[in-house]
Amino acid sequence: MNQNNEPLILVCNDDGIFSPGILALAEVADEFGRVEIIAPDSQQSAVGHAITTNIPLRSRPLKVDGRFNGQAVTGTPADAIKLGHDQLLDQKPDLVVSGINHGSNASINILYSGTVSAATEGTILGYPSIAISCSDYSDDADLSGPKDAARKVIDYVLSNGLPAGVTLNLNAPAGPLKGIKWARQANSRYIGEFDNRVDPHDKSYYWLTGKLEVLEEGEDLDINVLRNGYASLTPIQYDLTAYTLLEKVKDTDL
Amino acid sequence: MNQNNEPLILVCNDDGIFSPGILALAEVADEFGRVEIIAPDSQQSAVGHAITTNIPLRSRPLKVDGRFNGQAVTGTPADAIKLGHDQLLDQKPDLVVSGINHGSNASINILYSGTVSAATEGTILGYPSIAISCSDYSDDADLSGPKDAARKVIDYVLSNGLPAGVTLNLNAPAGPLKGIKWARQANSRYIGEFDNRVDPHDKSYYWLTGKLEVLEEGEDLDINVLRNGYASLTPIQYDLTAYTLLEKVKDTDL
Repeated sequence: MNQNNEPLILVCNDDGIFSPGILALAEVADEFGRVEIIAPDSQQSAVGHAITTNIPLRSRPLKVDGRFNGQAVTGTPADAIKLGHDQLLDQKPDLVVSGINHGSNASINILYSGTVSAATEGTILGYPSIAISCSDYSDDADLSGPKDAARKVIDYVLSNGLPAGVTLNLNAPAGPLKGIKWARQANSRYIGEFDNRVDPHDKSYYWLTGKLEVLEEGEDLDINVLRNGYASLTPIQYDLTAYTLLEKVKDTDL
Repeated sequence: MNQNNEPLILVCNDDGIFSPGILALAEVADEFGRVEIIAPDSQQSAVGHAITTNIPLRSRPLKVDGRFNGQAVTGTPADAIKLGHDQLLDQKPDLVVSGINHGSNASINILYSGTVSAATEGTILGYPSIAISCSDYSDDADLSGPKDAARKVIDYVLSNGLPAGVTLNLNAPAGPLKGIKWARQANSRYIGEFDNRVDPHDKSYYWLTGKLEVLEEGEDLDINVLRNGYASLTPIQYDLTAYTLLEKVKDTDL
Protein backbone atom coordinates (compact mmCIF):
# COMPACT_ATOMS: atom_id res chain seq x y z
CA MET A 1 0.00 0.00 0.00
CA ASN A 2 1.19 3.53 -0.65
CA GLN A 3 1.24 6.45 1.75
CA ASN A 4 -2.51 6.99 1.50
CA ASN A 5 -3.25 3.31 2.08
CA GLU A 6 -4.61 3.33 -1.43
CA PRO A 7 -3.15 0.61 -3.66
CA LEU A 8 -1.01 1.75 -6.58
CA ILE A 9 -1.99 -0.24 -9.66
CA LEU A 10 0.32 -0.35 -12.67
CA VAL A 11 -1.61 -0.92 -15.90
CA CYS A 12 0.09 -2.22 -19.05
CA ASN A 13 -0.88 -4.08 -22.24
CA ASP A 14 0.50 -5.13 -25.62
CA ASP A 15 -2.03 -3.48 -27.95
CA GLY A 16 -0.58 -0.09 -27.08
CA ILE A 17 -1.53 2.70 -24.71
CA PHE A 18 -4.27 4.03 -27.01
CA SER A 19 -6.27 0.79 -27.28
CA PRO A 20 -9.85 0.59 -25.96
CA GLY A 21 -8.89 -2.44 -23.86
CA ILE A 22 -6.34 -0.66 -21.70
CA LEU A 23 -8.79 2.15 -20.99
CA ALA A 24 -11.41 -0.41 -19.93
CA LEU A 25 -8.90 -2.01 -17.57
CA ALA A 26 -7.82 1.36 -16.15
CA GLU A 27 -11.48 2.12 -15.38
CA VAL A 28 -11.76 -1.10 -13.37
CA ALA A 29 -8.40 -0.57 -11.62
CA ASP A 30 -9.49 2.98 -10.72
CA GLU A 31 -12.21 1.50 -8.48
CA PHE A 32 -9.48 -0.03 -6.29
CA GLY A 33 -6.76 2.62 -6.06
CA ARG A 34 -4.44 4.98 -7.86
CA VAL A 35 -3.83 4.09 -11.49
CA GLU A 36 -0.60 4.58 -13.44
CA ILE A 37 -0.64 3.42 -17.06
CA ILE A 38 2.77 2.53 -18.47
CA ALA A 39 2.46 0.79 -21.81
CA PRO A 40 3.93 0.51 -25.31
CA ASP A 41 3.29 3.46 -27.60
CA SER A 42 2.45 1.08 -30.47
CA GLN A 43 0.91 -2.30 -31.22
CA GLN A 44 3.12 -5.06 -29.73
CA SER A 45 0.97 -8.15 -30.14
CA ALA A 46 2.73 -11.52 -30.19
CA VAL A 47 6.09 -10.14 -29.07
CA GLY A 48 6.17 -12.64 -26.21
CA HIS A 49 8.75 -11.85 -23.56
CA ALA A 50 10.94 -9.79 -25.89
CA ILE A 51 13.04 -7.05 -24.27
CA THR A 52 15.02 -4.27 -25.91
CA THR A 53 18.77 -4.35 -25.34
CA ASN A 54 20.38 -2.98 -28.51
CA ILE A 55 18.62 0.38 -28.73
CA PRO A 56 17.57 2.80 -25.99
CA LEU A 57 14.01 3.34 -24.82
CA ARG A 58 12.11 6.57 -24.45
CA SER A 59 9.03 7.40 -22.47
CA ARG A 60 6.46 10.15 -23.03
CA PRO A 61 4.03 11.26 -20.30
CA LEU A 62 0.41 11.76 -21.37
CA LYS A 63 -3.15 11.51 -20.13
CA VAL A 64 -5.12 8.49 -21.29
CA ASP A 65 -8.69 9.49 -22.16
CA GLY A 66 -7.91 12.86 -20.57
CA ARG A 67 -8.00 11.38 -17.07
CA PHE A 68 -5.43 8.65 -16.32
CA ASN A 69 -1.71 9.30 -15.81
CA GLY A 70 0.13 7.53 -18.58
CA GLN A 71 3.62 6.93 -19.95
CA ALA A 72 3.95 5.78 -23.56
CA VAL A 73 7.10 3.65 -23.86
CA THR A 74 8.87 2.96 -27.17
CA GLY A 75 9.60 -0.71 -26.34
CA THR A 76 7.84 -3.99 -25.63
CA PRO A 77 5.34 -4.78 -22.86
CA ALA A 78 8.11 -6.36 -20.72
CA ASP A 79 10.25 -3.24 -21.32
CA ALA A 80 7.38 -1.04 -20.12
CA ILE A 81 7.05 -2.96 -16.85
CA LYS A 82 10.82 -2.94 -16.29
CA LEU A 83 11.05 0.79 -17.01
CA GLY A 84 8.08 1.55 -14.77
CA HIS A 85 9.59 -0.49 -11.92
CA ASP A 86 13.11 0.86 -12.26
CA GLN A 87 12.63 4.48 -13.38
CA LEU A 88 9.16 5.89 -13.90
CA LEU A 89 7.09 5.09 -10.80
CA ASP A 90 7.54 7.14 -7.63
CA GLN A 91 6.75 4.10 -5.49
CA LYS A 92 6.40 0.35 -5.90
CA PRO A 93 3.06 -0.82 -7.27
CA ASP A 94 0.80 -3.02 -5.15
CA LEU A 95 -0.54 -4.74 -8.25
CA VAL A 96 0.31 -5.06 -11.94
CA VAL A 97 -2.50 -5.65 -14.45
CA SER A 98 -2.02 -6.17 -18.18
CA GLY A 99 -4.78 -5.91 -20.78
CA ILE A 100 -7.59 -6.00 -21.59
CA ASN A 101 -6.10 -7.68 -24.64
CA HIS A 102 -8.11 -7.70 -27.84
CA GLY A 103 -7.95 -11.45 -28.50
CA SER A 104 -7.70 -14.56 -26.34
CA ASN A 105 -4.44 -15.53 -24.65
CA ALA A 106 -5.31 -19.08 -23.73
CA SER A 107 -3.51 -22.37 -24.48
CA ILE A 108 -0.29 -22.03 -26.50
CA ASN A 109 -0.98 -18.33 -27.12
CA ILE A 110 0.21 -17.71 -23.55
CA LEU A 111 3.76 -18.17 -24.86
CA TYR A 112 3.41 -15.69 -27.73
CA SER A 113 1.50 -13.07 -25.80
CA GLY A 114 2.99 -9.71 -24.93
CA THR A 115 0.05 -9.10 -22.59
CA VAL A 116 0.88 -12.17 -20.52
CA SER A 117 4.62 -11.42 -20.58
CA ALA A 118 4.01 -7.95 -19.11
CA ALA A 119 2.24 -9.59 -16.20
CA THR A 120 4.92 -12.27 -15.91
CA GLU A 121 7.57 -9.54 -15.78
CA GLY A 122 5.57 -7.96 -12.93
CA THR A 123 5.71 -11.31 -11.11
CA ILE A 124 9.46 -11.64 -11.71
CA LEU A 125 9.93 -8.20 -10.14
CA GLY A 126 7.93 -9.30 -7.10
CA TYR A 127 4.48 -7.78 -7.69
CA PRO A 128 1.16 -9.63 -7.71
CA SER A 129 0.25 -9.58 -11.40
CA ILE A 130 -2.73 -10.42 -13.59
CA ALA A 131 -3.08 -10.66 -17.39
CA ILE A 132 -6.58 -10.08 -18.78
CA SER A 133 -7.75 -10.84 -22.33
CA CYS A 134 -11.04 -10.82 -24.21
CA SER A 135 -11.66 -13.61 -26.74
CA ASP A 136 -13.01 -11.12 -29.27
CA TYR A 137 -10.37 -9.42 -31.44
CA SER A 138 -12.46 -6.46 -32.53
CA ASP A 139 -11.78 -3.02 -31.11
CA ASP A 140 -15.49 -2.48 -30.42
CA ALA A 141 -16.09 -5.80 -28.63
CA ASP A 142 -18.42 -5.64 -25.61
CA LEU A 143 -15.90 -5.64 -22.75
CA SER A 144 -18.53 -5.64 -19.98
CA GLY A 145 -17.89 -9.30 -19.09
CA PRO A 146 -14.08 -9.03 -19.20
CA LYS A 147 -14.35 -5.91 -17.01
CA ASP A 148 -16.56 -7.72 -14.49
CA ALA A 149 -14.15 -10.67 -14.47
CA ALA A 150 -11.16 -8.34 -14.02
CA ARG A 151 -12.96 -6.64 -11.12
CA LYS A 152 -13.53 -9.95 -9.33
CA VAL A 153 -9.96 -11.17 -9.86
CA ILE A 154 -8.37 -7.86 -8.84
CA ASP A 155 -10.49 -7.90 -5.69
CA TYR A 156 -9.41 -11.51 -5.01
CA VAL A 157 -5.71 -10.73 -5.48
CA LEU A 158 -5.74 -7.52 -3.42
CA SER A 159 -7.47 -9.47 -0.61
CA ASN A 160 -5.55 -12.75 -0.79
CA GLY A 161 -2.25 -11.95 -2.52
CA LEU A 162 -0.52 -14.42 -4.80
CA PRO A 163 2.30 -16.87 -4.06
CA ALA A 164 5.73 -15.70 -5.25
CA GLY A 165 6.43 -16.73 -8.82
CA VAL A 166 2.80 -17.14 -9.86
CA THR A 167 0.88 -14.92 -12.31
CA LEU A 168 -2.87 -15.12 -12.97
CA ASN A 169 -3.94 -15.37 -16.60
CA LEU A 170 -7.59 -14.40 -17.09
CA ASN A 171 -9.47 -14.78 -20.37
CA ALA A 172 -13.12 -13.81 -20.82
CA PRO A 173 -15.59 -13.92 -23.71
CA ALA A 174 -17.05 -10.64 -24.93
CA GLY A 175 -20.50 -9.74 -23.60
CA PRO A 176 -21.98 -10.28 -20.13
CA LEU A 177 -20.03 -12.46 -17.67
CA LYS A 178 -21.46 -15.95 -17.18
CA GLY A 179 -18.92 -16.84 -14.48
CA ILE A 180 -15.21 -17.50 -13.85
CA LYS A 181 -13.70 -21.00 -13.73
CA TRP A 182 -10.20 -22.02 -12.71
CA ALA A 183 -8.47 -23.73 -15.62
CA ARG A 184 -5.18 -25.15 -16.84
CA GLN A 185 -3.24 -24.25 -20.00
CA ALA A 186 -4.43 -26.47 -22.87
CA ASN A 187 -1.69 -28.21 -24.84
CA SER A 188 -2.10 -27.00 -28.41
CA ARG A 189 -0.25 -25.87 -31.50
CA TYR A 190 -0.97 -24.19 -34.79
CA ILE A 191 -1.31 -26.20 -38.00
CA GLY A 192 -1.23 -24.94 -41.60
CA GLU A 193 0.65 -21.96 -40.35
CA PHE A 194 1.64 -19.96 -43.39
CA ASP A 195 -0.10 -18.53 -46.41
CA ASN A 196 2.48 -18.67 -49.23
CA ARG A 197 1.85 -15.74 -51.59
CA VAL A 198 3.54 -14.07 -54.54
CA ASP A 199 4.28 -10.35 -54.48
CA PRO A 200 3.82 -7.91 -57.44
CA HIS A 201 7.46 -8.61 -58.37
CA ASP A 202 6.89 -12.40 -58.62
CA LYS A 203 8.73 -13.08 -55.40
CA SER A 204 7.45 -15.42 -52.73
CA TYR A 205 6.44 -14.30 -49.24
CA TYR A 206 4.83 -16.01 -46.27
CA TRP A 207 2.15 -14.69 -43.96
CA LEU A 208 1.52 -16.30 -40.58
CA THR A 209 -2.01 -17.62 -40.19
CA GLY A 210 -3.05 -21.15 -39.19
CA LYS A 211 -5.62 -22.99 -37.13
CA LEU A 212 -5.26 -23.92 -33.49
CA GLU A 213 -5.16 -27.67 -32.90
CA VAL A 214 -5.92 -28.68 -29.30
CA LEU A 215 -3.95 -31.80 -28.37
CA GLU A 216 -5.79 -32.92 -25.26
CA GLU A 217 -9.29 -33.08 -23.77
CA GLY A 218 -10.76 -31.88 -20.51
CA GLU A 219 -13.39 -29.52 -19.18
CA ASP A 220 -10.71 -27.81 -17.10
CA LEU A 221 -8.67 -26.67 -20.13
CA ASP A 222 -8.64 -22.88 -20.49
CA ILE A 223 -9.78 -23.11 -24.09
CA ASN A 224 -12.75 -25.35 -23.23
CA VAL A 225 -13.84 -23.13 -20.36
CA LEU A 226 -13.96 -20.27 -22.88
CA ARG A 227 -15.81 -22.39 -25.45
CA ASN A 228 -18.42 -23.10 -22.79
CA GLY A 229 -18.95 -19.36 -22.37
CA TYR A 230 -17.12 -18.86 -19.06
CA ALA A 231 -14.07 -16.78 -18.21
CA SER A 232 -10.97 -18.93 -17.56
CA LEU A 233 -8.50 -18.19 -14.79
CA THR A 234 -5.14 -19.97 -14.98
CA PRO A 235 -2.26 -19.61 -12.51
CA ILE A 236 1.00 -19.74 -14.49
CA GLN A 237 4.64 -19.80 -13.43
CA TYR A 238 7.92 -18.67 -14.93
CA ASP A 239 10.00 -21.48 -13.43
CA LEU A 240 10.06 -23.61 -16.57
CA THR A 241 12.05 -26.51 -15.07
CA ALA A 242 10.46 -29.83 -16.04
CA TYR A 243 10.87 -31.34 -12.58
CA THR A 244 9.27 -34.70 -13.41
CA LEU A 245 11.86 -35.44 -16.08
CA LEU A 246 14.70 -33.91 -14.05
CA GLU A 247 13.93 -36.24 -11.16
CA LYS A 248 14.12 -39.24 -13.52
CA VAL A 249 17.34 -38.34 -15.32
CA LYS A 250 19.35 -36.46 -12.74
CA ASP A 251 21.67 -39.39 -12.05
CA THR A 252 22.23 -40.15 -15.73
CA ASP A 253 25.80 -39.41 -16.78
CA LEU A 254 26.32 -37.66 -20.07
CA MET B 1 14.69 -40.78 -39.61
CA ASN B 2 14.58 -39.76 -43.25
CA GLN B 3 14.67 -42.00 -46.31
CA ASN B 4 18.42 -42.65 -45.96
CA ASN B 5 18.08 -43.51 -42.27
CA GLU B 6 20.18 -40.44 -41.66
CA PRO B 7 18.63 -38.01 -39.18
CA LEU B 8 17.59 -34.60 -40.51
CA ILE B 9 18.74 -31.94 -38.07
CA LEU B 10 17.26 -28.43 -38.22
CA VAL B 11 19.68 -25.83 -36.91
CA CYS B 12 18.51 -22.38 -35.76
CA ASN B 13 19.68 -19.60 -33.43
CA ASP B 14 18.94 -16.02 -32.44
CA ASP B 15 22.27 -14.34 -33.22
CA GLY B 16 21.57 -14.72 -36.94
CA ILE B 17 22.59 -17.16 -39.64
CA PHE B 18 26.05 -15.58 -40.06
CA SER B 19 27.17 -15.93 -36.43
CA PRO B 20 30.17 -18.11 -35.50
CA GLY B 21 28.03 -20.01 -32.99
CA ILE B 22 25.56 -21.40 -35.52
CA LEU B 23 28.40 -22.61 -37.72
CA ALA B 24 29.97 -24.37 -34.74
CA LEU B 25 26.66 -26.08 -33.99
CA ALA B 26 26.16 -27.07 -37.65
CA GLU B 27 29.59 -28.71 -37.58
CA VAL B 28 28.57 -30.84 -34.59
CA ALA B 29 25.14 -31.66 -36.06
CA ASP B 30 26.84 -32.70 -39.31
CA GLU B 31 28.49 -35.60 -37.44
CA PHE B 32 25.02 -37.06 -36.81
CA GLY B 33 23.10 -36.54 -40.04
CA ARG B 34 21.93 -34.13 -42.72
CA VAL B 35 21.97 -30.49 -41.65
CA GLU B 36 19.53 -27.77 -42.71
CA ILE B 37 20.13 -24.33 -41.24
CA ILE B 38 17.04 -22.12 -41.05
CA ALA B 39 17.68 -19.03 -38.97
CA PRO B 40 17.06 -15.29 -38.73
CA ASP B 41 18.95 -13.12 -41.23
CA SER B 42 19.81 -10.64 -38.45
CA GLN B 43 20.59 -10.41 -34.76
CA GLN B 44 17.47 -11.38 -32.73
CA SER B 45 18.81 -11.63 -29.20
CA ALA B 46 16.32 -11.23 -26.35
CA VAL B 47 13.27 -11.42 -28.59
CA GLY B 48 11.88 -14.25 -26.46
CA HIS B 49 9.03 -16.15 -28.07
CA ALA B 50 8.04 -13.27 -30.37
CA ILE B 51 6.39 -14.23 -33.65
CA THR B 52 5.60 -12.05 -36.66
CA THR B 53 1.93 -11.65 -37.51
CA ASN B 54 1.51 -8.15 -38.93
CA ILE B 55 4.05 -8.28 -41.75
CA PRO B 56 4.99 -11.11 -44.10
CA LEU B 57 8.21 -13.13 -43.89
CA ARG B 58 10.70 -13.86 -46.61
CA SER B 59 13.34 -16.53 -46.85
CA ARG B 60 16.55 -16.56 -48.88
CA PRO B 61 18.47 -19.78 -49.63
CA LEU B 62 22.25 -19.63 -49.16
CA LYS B 63 25.25 -21.74 -48.22
CA VAL B 64 26.61 -21.19 -44.71
CA ASP B 65 30.41 -21.23 -44.75
CA GLY B 66 30.14 -22.47 -48.34
CA ARG B 67 29.04 -25.93 -47.20
CA PHE B 68 25.77 -26.09 -45.25
CA ASN B 69 22.30 -25.63 -46.79
CA GLY B 70 20.80 -22.53 -45.26
CA GLN B 71 17.69 -20.35 -45.36
CA ALA B 72 17.95 -16.81 -44.00
CA VAL B 73 14.53 -15.78 -42.63
CA THR B 74 13.49 -12.16 -42.09
CA GLY B 75 11.69 -12.89 -38.79
CA THR B 76 12.35 -14.12 -35.27
CA PRO B 77 13.83 -17.46 -34.16
CA ALA B 78 10.35 -18.88 -33.49
CA ASP B 79 9.26 -17.66 -36.95
CA ALA B 80 12.22 -19.48 -38.53
CA ILE B 81 11.26 -22.79 -36.88
CA LYS B 82 7.61 -22.37 -37.84
CA LEU B 83 8.49 -21.51 -41.43
CA GLY B 84 10.94 -24.40 -41.68
CA HIS B 85 8.35 -26.83 -40.34
CA ASP B 86 5.46 -25.58 -42.44
CA GLN B 87 7.06 -24.49 -45.73
CA LEU B 88 10.81 -24.83 -46.21
CA LEU B 89 11.81 -28.37 -45.25
CA ASP B 90 11.17 -31.27 -47.62
CA GLN B 91 10.63 -33.64 -44.69
CA LYS B 92 10.12 -33.44 -40.95
CA PRO B 93 13.29 -32.97 -38.90
CA ASP B 94 14.37 -35.68 -36.44
CA LEU B 95 15.92 -33.08 -34.19
CA VAL B 96 15.91 -29.29 -33.72
CA VAL B 97 18.99 -27.60 -32.26
CA SER B 98 19.29 -23.88 -31.54
CA GLY B 99 22.57 -22.06 -30.89
CA ILE B 100 25.36 -21.99 -30.07
CA ASN B 101 24.28 -18.72 -28.52
CA HIS B 102 26.92 -16.12 -27.73
CA GLY B 103 25.98 -15.57 -24.07
CA SER B 104 24.44 -17.69 -21.32
CA ASN B 105 20.74 -18.52 -21.30
CA ALA B 106 20.45 -19.75 -17.74
CA SER B 107 18.12 -18.67 -14.90
CA ILE B 108 15.66 -15.89 -15.80
CA ASN B 109 17.36 -15.34 -19.17
CA ILE B 110 15.57 -18.48 -20.38
CA LEU B 111 12.44 -16.33 -20.65
CA TYR B 112 14.06 -13.57 -22.70
CA SER B 113 16.07 -15.84 -24.97
CA GLY B 114 15.31 -16.19 -28.65
CA THR B 115 17.66 -19.19 -28.75
CA VAL B 116 15.62 -21.07 -26.18
CA SER B 117 12.32 -20.04 -27.78
CA ALA B 118 13.42 -21.50 -31.13
CA ALA B 119 13.98 -24.84 -29.39
CA THR B 120 10.72 -24.51 -27.46
CA GLU B 121 8.89 -23.88 -30.74
CA GLY B 122 10.47 -27.10 -32.06
CA THR B 123 9.08 -28.93 -29.02
CA ILE B 124 5.62 -27.41 -29.53
CA LEU B 125 5.66 -28.71 -33.12
CA GLY B 126 6.55 -32.18 -31.86
CA TYR B 127 10.31 -32.45 -32.47
CA PRO B 128 12.99 -33.32 -29.88
CA SER B 129 14.71 -29.97 -29.37
CA ILE B 130 17.81 -28.63 -27.67
CA ALA B 131 18.97 -25.06 -27.00
CA ILE B 132 22.73 -24.57 -26.61
CA SER B 133 24.49 -21.47 -25.28
CA CYS B 134 28.02 -20.47 -24.35
CA SER B 135 28.50 -18.26 -21.28
CA ASP B 136 30.99 -16.09 -23.14
CA TYR B 137 29.44 -13.26 -25.19
CA SER B 138 32.41 -12.63 -27.47
CA ASP B 139 32.30 -13.73 -31.09
CA ASP B 140 35.75 -15.32 -30.79
CA ALA B 141 35.08 -17.31 -27.61
CA ASP B 142 36.59 -20.80 -27.51
CA LEU B 143 33.55 -22.95 -28.36
CA SER B 144 35.35 -26.29 -27.99
CA GLY B 145 33.63 -27.09 -24.68
CA PRO B 146 30.13 -26.01 -25.81
CA LYS B 147 30.65 -28.11 -28.99
CA ASP B 148 31.68 -31.16 -26.94
CA ALA B 149 28.68 -30.66 -24.66
CA ALA B 150 26.35 -30.27 -27.66
CA ARG B 151 27.78 -33.49 -29.15
CA LYS B 152 27.06 -35.46 -25.98
CA VAL B 153 23.53 -34.09 -25.59
CA ILE B 154 22.62 -34.57 -29.27
CA ASP B 155 23.86 -38.16 -29.01
CA TYR B 156 21.80 -38.64 -25.84
CA VAL B 157 18.62 -37.23 -27.42
CA LEU B 158 18.97 -39.12 -30.71
CA SER B 159 19.45 -42.35 -28.68
CA ASN B 160 16.88 -41.78 -25.93
CA GLY B 161 14.39 -39.28 -27.33
CA LEU B 162 12.67 -36.71 -25.14
CA PRO B 163 9.22 -36.78 -23.50
CA ALA B 164 6.57 -34.75 -25.32
CA GLY B 165 6.51 -31.13 -24.17
CA VAL B 166 10.06 -31.05 -22.81
CA THR B 167 12.99 -29.09 -24.28
CA LEU B 168 16.61 -29.41 -23.15
CA ASN B 169 18.42 -26.18 -22.31
CA LEU B 170 22.21 -26.61 -22.35
CA ASN B 171 24.66 -23.92 -21.23
CA ALA B 172 28.43 -24.35 -21.28
CA PRO B 173 31.41 -22.21 -20.31
CA ALA B 174 33.88 -21.28 -23.04
CA GLY B 175 37.03 -23.41 -23.23
CA PRO B 176 37.46 -27.15 -22.67
CA LEU B 177 34.51 -29.11 -21.25
CA LYS B 178 34.84 -30.04 -17.58
CA GLY B 179 31.60 -32.05 -17.58
CA ILE B 180 27.81 -31.75 -17.86
CA LYS B 181 25.49 -31.58 -14.84
CA TRP B 182 21.70 -31.73 -14.77
CA ALA B 183 20.34 -28.54 -13.25
CA ARG B 184 17.18 -26.56 -12.54
CA GLN B 185 16.33 -23.00 -13.57
CA ALA B 186 17.57 -20.58 -10.88
CA ASN B 187 15.02 -18.04 -9.66
CA SER B 188 16.55 -14.66 -10.40
CA ARG B 189 15.82 -11.15 -11.64
CA TYR B 190 17.69 -8.10 -12.79
CA ILE B 191 18.27 -5.14 -10.48
CA GLY B 192 19.36 -1.60 -11.38
CA GLU B 193 18.03 -2.25 -14.82
CA PHE B 194 18.32 1.01 -16.71
CA ASP B 195 21.01 3.55 -17.39
CA ASN B 196 19.22 6.91 -17.61
CA ARG B 197 21.11 9.13 -20.07
CA VAL B 198 20.64 12.46 -21.80
CA ASP B 199 20.87 12.72 -25.59
CA PRO B 200 22.60 15.55 -27.56
CA HIS B 201 19.23 17.33 -27.67
CA ASP B 202 18.86 17.30 -23.86
CA LYS B 203 16.21 14.62 -23.92
CA SER B 204 16.19 11.65 -21.58
CA TYR B 205 16.62 8.05 -22.76
CA TYR B 206 17.00 4.72 -21.01
CA TRP B 207 19.31 1.86 -21.87
CA LEU B 208 18.72 -1.62 -20.48
CA THR B 209 21.61 -2.92 -18.39
CA GLY B 210 21.45 -4.29 -14.85
CA LYS B 211 22.92 -6.98 -12.66
CA LEU B 212 21.49 -10.44 -12.17
CA GLU B 213 20.32 -11.11 -8.62
CA VAL B 214 19.91 -14.81 -7.81
CA LEU B 215 17.06 -15.30 -5.34
CA GLU B 216 17.79 -18.82 -4.11
CA GLU B 217 20.67 -21.14 -3.27
CA GLY B 218 21.59 -24.61 -4.37
CA GLU B 219 24.34 -26.49 -6.17
CA ASP B 220 21.77 -27.78 -8.64
CA LEU B 221 20.86 -24.31 -9.94
CA ASP B 222 21.87 -23.84 -13.58
CA ILE B 223 23.71 -20.65 -12.75
CA ASN B 224 25.75 -22.30 -9.97
CA VAL B 225 26.65 -25.28 -12.13
CA LEU B 226 28.07 -22.79 -14.64
CA ARG B 227 29.88 -20.83 -11.92
CA ASN B 228 31.53 -24.09 -10.87
CA GLY B 229 32.85 -24.51 -14.39
CA TYR B 230 30.48 -27.24 -15.62
CA ALA B 231 27.95 -27.22 -18.41
CA SER B 232 24.36 -27.14 -17.12
CA LEU B 233 21.56 -29.17 -18.68
CA THR B 234 18.00 -28.20 -17.72
CA PRO B 235 14.81 -29.84 -18.98
CA ILE B 236 12.19 -27.12 -19.45
CA GLN B 237 8.51 -27.23 -20.35
CA TYR B 238 6.06 -24.90 -22.07
CA ASP B 239 3.06 -25.93 -19.98
CA LEU B 240 3.20 -22.94 -17.64
CA THR B 241 0.25 -23.99 -15.45
CA ALA B 242 1.13 -23.56 -11.77
CA TYR B 243 -0.44 -26.86 -10.72
CA THR B 244 0.41 -26.55 -7.03
CA LEU B 245 -1.58 -23.34 -6.66
CA LEU B 246 -4.33 -24.54 -9.02
CA GLU B 247 -4.90 -27.61 -6.84
CA LYS B 248 -5.27 -25.38 -3.77
CA VAL B 249 -7.63 -22.79 -5.23
CA LYS B 250 -9.66 -24.74 -7.80
CA ASP B 251 -12.74 -24.92 -5.57
CA THR B 252 -12.59 -21.23 -4.60
CA ASP B 253 -15.51 -19.30 -6.07
CA LEU B 254 -14.79 -15.91 -7.58
